[in-house]
Amino acid sequence: MNEYRGKAIQDVYPDDFAWCYGCGRLNKNGHHFQTYWQGNETITMYKPEQEHIAVPGFVYGGIIASFIDCHGTGSASLALHRKNGYEPEDGVEPPRFVTASLKVDFIKPTPHNITLKAVGKITEIHPKRWKIDTEVFANNTLCAKGEVVAVVMPKTFK
Amino acid sequence: MNEYRGKAIQDVYPDDFAWCYGCGRLNKNGHHFQTYWQGNETITMYKPEQEHIAVPGFVYGGIIASFIDCHGTGSASLALHRKNGYEPEDGVEPPRFVTASLKVDFIKPTPHNITLKAVGKITEIHPKRWKIDTEVFANNTLCAKGEVVAVVMPKTFK
Repeated sequence: MNEYRGKAIQDVYPDDFAWCYGCGRLNKNGHHFQTYWQGNETITMYKPEQEHIAVPGFVYGGIIASFIDCHGTGSASLALHRKNGYEPEDGVEPPRFVTASLKVDFIKPTPHNITLKAVGKITEIHPKRWKIDTEVFANNTLCAKGEVVAVVMPKTFK
Repeated sequence: MNEYRGKAIQDVYPDDFAWCYGCGRLNKNGHHFQTYWQGNETITMYKPEQEHIAVPGFVYGGIIASFIDCHGTGSASLALHRKNGYEPEDGVEPPRFVTASLKVDFIKPTPHNITLKAVGKITEIHPKRWKIDTEVFANNTLCAKGEVVAVVMPKTFK
């Protein structure tokens, strides 16, 4: 299972930005998605909970959308951090991104009770705006494709 | 709050298809989204839970994506059911849809601790394929726009 090395980017998000229901390590009830480098691609693994079904035996699409969303912002953070000269384990706070848009194409029903793998390819659109193309696999079957456009988080949301 | 009348379409989904984590009435741990007619548009109201945050004070995008997803499939079900001559309260099982694709544009950070309103406009693409354009409001502020393409659920997922 551990095809990747190093720390997840979510492990080193600043505490103030570590409350995300999808990927924040400080959100006790969240999904705790964790995104790593794997070569020049990014990877996030996740096994949906028992209740995360659309119909019995198949994963709920909103969970897959959430998975792609946080995988996308995490991947963008990994990429800009690396561009700035850092890896997650370097002890430097990485940039935090928010999602501008999210697109999911559901290719096949996603079987439940399997650990899913999201694999991301990252493109820089602008220094503060990145696109992440993601494929979600159950075992080796491609079940969904996603595109996230992520932007560097503004200093304030007000 | 009750601007709409009648039953939610999810109240009358067949039992076998009422387990969705987003909108299934039989999924004890799910979100229980409920979608109604409001004239020729559809409406779903939902107040995110305390843990459903991106950062404190603002709603997690994956929850908004889930909200738009089930609002979309519910709207498609309402629309095809009406085309077939029925309303949810007529005691006839409605058609059930699955999501082919989901697109969300996050317009503004969505404030937390507010009941959100999704409003949908429905277009028939094909008798078994419908498009739902959704706007999500917090109070009267447009926070997100979504597009769902929903298709009639296949008889089996195998």
